[in-house]
Amino acid sequence: MRILITNIGELTTNAPVPEHVEAGDDPCGTLHDAAVLIDGDRIAWVGPAADAPDAEETIDAEGRAVIPGFVDSHSHLVFGGDRAAEFEARMQGQKYAAGGIRSTVAATRAATDDELRIRLRGFLDEMLAQGTTTVEIKSGYGLDVATEERLVRLAAEVTPEVTFLGAHVVPAEYADRGDDYVALVTGEMLDACAPHAKWIDVFCETGAFTVPQSRRVLEAGIARGLQPRVHASQLGPGEGVQLAVELGAASIDHGTYLTEDDVTALAGSETVLTLLPGVEFSTRQPYPDARRLIDAGVTVAIACDTNPGSSFTSSMPFCIAVAVRDMRMTVAEAIHAATAGGAAALRRTDIGRIAPGLRADLVLLKSPSRVHLAYRPGVPLVDAVWKDGVRAV
Amino acid sequence: MRILITNIGELTTNAPVPEHVEAGDDPCGTLHDAAVLIDGDRIAWVGPAADAPDAEETIDAEGRAVIPGFVDSHSHLVFGGDRAAEFEARMQGQKYAAGGIRSTVAATRAATDDELRIRLRGFLDEMLAQGTTTVEIKSGYGLDVATEERLVRLAAEVTPEVTFLGAHVVPAEYADRGDDYVALVTGEMLDACAPHAKWIDVFCETGAFTVPQSRRVLEAGIARGLQPRVHASQLGPGEGVQLAVELGAASIDHGTYLTEDDVTALAGSETVLTLLPGVEFSTRQPYPDARRLIDAGVTVAIACDTNPGSSFTSSMPFCIAVAVRDMRMTVAEAIHAATAGGAAALRRTDIGRIAPGLRADLVLLKSPSRVHLAYRPGVPLVDAVWKDGVRAV
Ligand SMILES: [Zn+2]
Ligand SMILES: [Zn+2]
Repeated sequence: MRILITNIGELTTNAPVPEHVEAGDDPCGTLHDAAVLIDGDRIAWVGPAADAPDAEETIDAEGRAVIPGFVDSHSHLVFGGDRAAEFEARMQGQKYAAGGIRSTVAATRAATDDELRIRLRGFLDEMLAQGTTTVEIKSGYGLDVATEERLVRLAAEVTPEVTFLGAHVVPAEYADRGDDYVALVTGEMLDACAPHAKWIDVFCETGAFTVPQSRRVLEAGIARGLQPRVHASQLGPGEGVQLAVELGAASIDHGTYLTEDDVTALAGSETVLTLLPGVEFSTRQPYPDARRLIDAGVTVAIACDTNPGSSFTSSMPFCIAVAVRDMRMTVAEAIHAATAGGAAALRRTDIGRIAPGLRADLVLLKSPSRVHLAYRPGVPLVDAVWKDGVRAV
Repeated sequence: MRILITNIGELTTNAPVPEHVEAGDDPCGTLHDAAVLIDGDRIAWVGPAADAPDAEETIDAEGRAVIPGFVDSHSHLVFGGDRAAEFEARMQGQKYAAGGIRSTVAATRAATDDELRIRLRGFLDEMLAQGTTTVEIKSGYGLDVATEERLVRLAAEVTPEVTFLGAHVVPAEYADRGDDYVALVTGEMLDACAPHAKWIDVFCETGAFTVPQSRRVLEAGIARGLQPRVHASQLGPGEGVQLAVELGAASIDHGTYLTEDDVTALAGSETVLTLLPGVEFSTRQPYPDARRLIDAGVTVAIACDTNPGSSFTSSMPFCIAVAVRDMRMTVAEAIHAATAGGAAALRRTDIGRIAPGLRADLVLLKSPSRVHLAYRPGVPLVDAVWKDGVRAV
């Protein structure tokens, strides 16, 4: 099936633009009056609408904007219950309670596979309707062998981007025995989870896992064929970034408290810094300085970190609006970070851009420009979504 | 037609709750396991689901939350063009350019009635889908007699809450002749617009209209049977609040810079303070301190101020989320302000609450609680909307 989307007023390709187009410092590889041909699950052609090839079906974008589907490279979607009361209390001035994670662990352990599946599929539908075509999903609310295995297995039913995060927090039953828990994570739990996962992750932060513990977790995962990614420097400075770069992690996520050495290390590496604006919005923590990172040459991604504790949004447009307002990104940088940046954070070269040969994951907006995603915060602006060439919304 | 919505997990009535229910300091008059009976365009009965009367149609809310339809008491929806480029530039560090309004004036004057109508109806559909069942609409992008008359006439086609805001800004052709423009507004322009409008409004602020000019505008409108409301104290302190209270205005809108005397005057009056969180979000201006106002006894409303310059959101849920995060309102206060507060700002007693005899304007959420509107920012959580008893979404 060949589908032509034509009369696109503003096309964000994230690809190098042809020589005759002035690109300036636009990271989005923007084309105007453009068309995209989908053939099967792939993009077959991109160019001026006037030169568009024939197709079996033609969609008139009526001058509106088309962007690549969002790549949400950080989420925690398999869990039971929610923590609305904790959120409400925090907004009234209570401090972030780390113990909150444990209430989600209890609800998750108590939930059946089908309960978790229904919840998970609901989140995916919600995300797709908001333009997200790829989502990474982490375990981490089981914290015992059986439940962690269930979480990665359920995640693998819906995405190839599955992350084993047994080392999310030390569970109550291992209080003051962090090393024993790390032994479990790197032993029996890893054995159970590795077959379902692509990624190994650890929360390297004071109160979670130390740098030596984090190294043990990541190296054990790598030895089992998993690729590393790291939660670090969310609540204070630490050596998590250096560890991530040393081990060739695809991404370090959060990164609010970075030293100059951290920034230099990231800029000289293939490791992406993934920004999670929903976390700072929903916890009133300080926003990372994306401007500093981008100006230093670091590749950044934006993701939702959808989870019931610190960021329950699943809206990439919302996160883009906050990144523009509060992390000092330009709109073009934020859109790029939410698409091509997310793809880089997942080491994917087949998504996040609109170019021949790539997966046909595209979003038609209701607005004439991608700028409206930040200019009209909270407004549902997604008109249509194609995933793997199939109209999904 | 009698429609019963039953099995409501959390019902926000904004009405005094029965004696046997513990209300505490909940401004939302919350009921659990509740039902609402709609009869025609009105609410006929509210109470425990177990006691619900029969109906011709029954809707099972499945334990989710129901709230009154949002009352968005401040918008500027009739205009041509947009100012996406100005927004993008401002986010990259340029200051708020007051001249920006004039570019919208040029585009609005150039647009046909039908072009404005299509745009306007698009916004209303978008708002309804986000739970807004009543919207106030201001003129103010015409600034000449013929165009202002068109704007109030077009607004009156879609809402009874029409505001004549000829005194939005002094147009370029009256530069340095503010008093002459006020004479036009209070004379020929008022004659043309008053038949279509309910409200008279003025932007009482340095750079817009002085206090004496604002008084002339409001008193001229009152003499023609219009009721006053005022834009004031957005960019700095001024006497606009005192003027509004003196004239019995239904609302003063913005109110970032309030003196203690202003707060005291508001607390002792029937004048509502309408907060517009989208403005501060989209301009990076400081947020008004809602906590101070509520603690002093001021009635507050939340509205979107949808306009192409300073706040292009039309999402009441988004504004609620920002009000909770950045204006220090509780979630319950913010929901109340976006419903009952908006009704008070429009001096309406038939909307903004869920009680027998009132209009059947209700929103069924996808979530078990209204808290999720702030807890899940940016996520579309509206499942169904009834306006005047008719299912609209
Ligand atoms: Zn996370
Ligand atoms: Zn306004």
